[in-house]
Amino acid sequence: MESDSVRIFYAQSGGVTSVINTTCAGLLHVAKQNNIEVLIGLNGIHGVFDEKFISSLSLDSEDIELLAKTPGGSFGSCRYKVTEDDHDKILSFIKNYQIDAFVYHGGNDSMDTCNKISKLCQDKGVKSAVIGLPKTIDNDLVGTDQCPGFGSSAKYLNVSFDEASLDITSMYRDSTKVFILETMGRHAGWLAASCGLTRHSQSNHMLLIPEKKYHLDDIAESIKSHIQRDNFCTIALSEGASLGLEQASDKAYKDSFGHVQLGGIGFSMLNWLKNDLNIKSHLAVSDYLQRSAGHCLSKVDFDQAFALGEYVVEALKQRKTGVMLTVVRHSSSPYQWTIGATALEEVANKERLVPDDFINSDHQLTNKGRQYFSPLIQGQVEQTWEDGLPLYWPHRLKVIEG
Amino acid sequence: MESDSVRIFYAQSGGVTSVINTTCAGLLHVAKQNNIEVLIGLNGIHGVFDEKFISSLSLDSEDIELLAKTPGGSFGSCRYKVTEDDHDKILSFIKNYQIDAFVYHGGNDSMDTCNKISKLCQDKGVKSAVIGLPKTIDNDLVGTDQCPGFGSSAKYLNVSFDEASLDITSMYRDSTKVFILETMGRHAGWLAASCGLTRHSQSNHMLLIPEKKYHLDDIAESIKSHIQRDNFCTIALSEGASLGLEQASDKAYKDSFGHVQLGGIGFSMLNWLKNDLNIKSHLAVSDYLQRSAGHCLSKVDFDQAFALGEYVVEALKQRKTGVMLTVVRHSSSPYQWTIGATALEEVANKERLVPDDFINSDHQLTNKGRQYFSPLIQGQVEQTWEDGLPLYWPHRLKVIEG
Repeated sequence: MESDSVRIFYAQSGGVTSVINTTCAGLLHVAKQNNIEVLIGLNGIHGVFDEKFISSLSLDSEDIELLAKTPGGSFGSCRYKVTEDDHDKILSFIKNYQIDAFVYHGGNDSMDTCNKISKLCQDKGVKSAVIGLPKTIDNDLVGTDQCPGFGSSAKYLNVSFDEASLDITSMYRDSTKVFILETMGRHAGWLAASCGLTRHSQSNHMLLIPEKKYHLDDIAESIKSHIQRDNFCTIALSEGASLGLEQASDKAYKDSFGHVQLGGIGFSMLNWLKNDLNIKSHLAVSDYLQRSAGHCLSKVDFDQAFALGEYVVEALKQRKTGVMLTVVRHSSSPYQWTIGATALEEVANKERLVPDDFINSDHQLTNKGRQYFSPLIQGQVEQTWEDGLPLYWPHRLKVIEG
Repeated sequence: MESDSVRIFYAQSGGVTSVINTTCAGLLHVAKQNNIEVLIGLNGIHGVFDEKFISSLSLDSEDIELLAKTPGGSFGSCRYKVTEDDHDKILSFIKNYQIDAFVYHGGNDSMDTCNKISKLCQDKGVKSAVIGLPKTIDNDLVGTDQCPGFGSSAKYLNVSFDEASLDITSMYRDSTKVFILETMGRHAGWLAASCGLTRHSQSNHMLLIPEKKYHLDDIAESIKSHIQRDNFCTIALSEGASLGLEQASDKAYKDSFGHVQLGGIGFSMLNWLKNDLNIKSHLAVSDYLQRSAGHCLSKVDFDQAFALGEYVVEALKQRKTGVMLTVVRHSSSPYQWTIGATALEEVANKERLVPDDFINSDHQLTNKGRQYFSPLIQGQVEQTWEDGLPLYWPHRLKVIEG
């Protein structure tokens, strides 16, 4: 790789996270050091189709530093499934703009897109490297110890679950007996499971995840026994969990990958507790807040997100292509990790679920689960605050249109 | 007041906040300095009936410092309406335990209780002073510039609303067009209105509060015009707002004051947006998280909460009784305030609502509203973190049973 002539295309895709920009900043940082230009597509792959992007040359070190700590995808994301009709456009773009590496940053669906583009380049003899960068708070990508974004969401949810536990502990005498925190995660229960790290509701919580089979009567019994023994119960409820309740979530909404927008089970459970069990309960639905909480980042997650972006240039030097960069865990205590790479075809369209032995029959975290989750929420990232709010990157974009 | 012989009874009541303990810590701090014993009732007024409390003498300075930064009511709260049947028990308690000052810490309902106890002491010639300490995230107590707890909840909600704005800005191209944040506040819209301080959705947000009359068609038009112009819209929605939608909240739940548990309008609005307007939307319901977010306190709110507790001893020296201590605003810019006092009968059973001129016809904050809210979310309070979570007070309670 002749670094003075290298040009990287980079874009963000899928649901954003609080550290998706951190990985981008890692890439921009190392690119600047190596005199590499990065073209950042606007709104993911649409940036290719629309030929709309910005050049890393228009961003200075201060931009990159602030970008690293800014939640959301500052260049816009997309939920678009690449089809055969798009192949020519993508190849033309790579050729016309002399792209040496096509770097696509996303979750499962994005790695599928990335894998297709990689095969396409191989088939057509296009020399551009294709590299996937992982991100998803769902933590369901195979091949990586954690998916950046997950650690920070898990930290935010744990802090919230813990604080709400202190709240309900104050209130249960005359008032609320059950507090439910509905988490994201789709068909994987990583986020809800991670809430077992809570400090103030150690014996009183239940973690309900999509990977487990539940009978509504058993859940009712568990809740009642918590209340009978300790007066309250806190529940971390994955949006994809199946409790046997009729769900209020609207089945009509599907994205271009055919995924239904989940959510709503918390409200169903709340109404069930009130109406069927006559238990006064409260429900919090963190929704976007859990994936954009820049004010409550995990330092470990932040560092891994940055390191993945930084590693792109190293991967190119090693002539890697058709890979997704990964976090490799070497030990849990102390937590030791490095950056690695795995073939995109090993990742695309696969889903990593929570192992059965992470949660016990009391719906609580096992030691094995705790060993996995605990390192991922460690450490804080200090933000600069201005006028009462964190100071995020103000999106000074000098857009280039093709 | 002979400080070496003074004994104060203190209890927490109503919905808790992230700084209710801060006020308690302020009182314990100044009591320690003045060699005063504070008996802290467990579960509010139940501590009196059950004769269960702890003595401030069992808490050291380290306890008090950590308590100050711990959300929730560490001694338990209550939702109990005092009736005539309870009067004798309360008077006996005050006499038997030689209580010189009965300090009750809560919101509207608690000030009603406090006022009744004050009158009772007067009627029966009992010499104990009766002092109310304000707290409620609803900010609806009259006579005080803000109700401690509100500033921190407003800060938490603003940070969250702002971060979610960055998220939806990334997603709107292919996905979500509307983000709703449902806030607490009961029949007062202070919390939702405060969200107008957001930095990243200045022109794109709508603040919907109970004090305003809405027509559903107009709301639909406003949302559509935001989407048409800027592709997205963020909404801070008060749980008590009336949009003309059928609400899913269960009317069957009332506390002993006859108050219905609100909440649920966000879900109704979400379904209306999806089903009737065909607009892909997301909803966050912060619920308890907004009133227990010790990791995101407002320094101004924290300082006021502490100062109110500290001021109790000063008020006793001035032989004040039958009053609620208040925050008095002297100027907004720079924000200058002192602690004052107002008669409990001026406070009890009244409700302070958001002034009409705080929100304009575009459902956004006016300058007048901004001047009021902005000072209240300023500054941060640093927490000690341990193992990824804030280190809160571990509730080492040496309970005294009568």
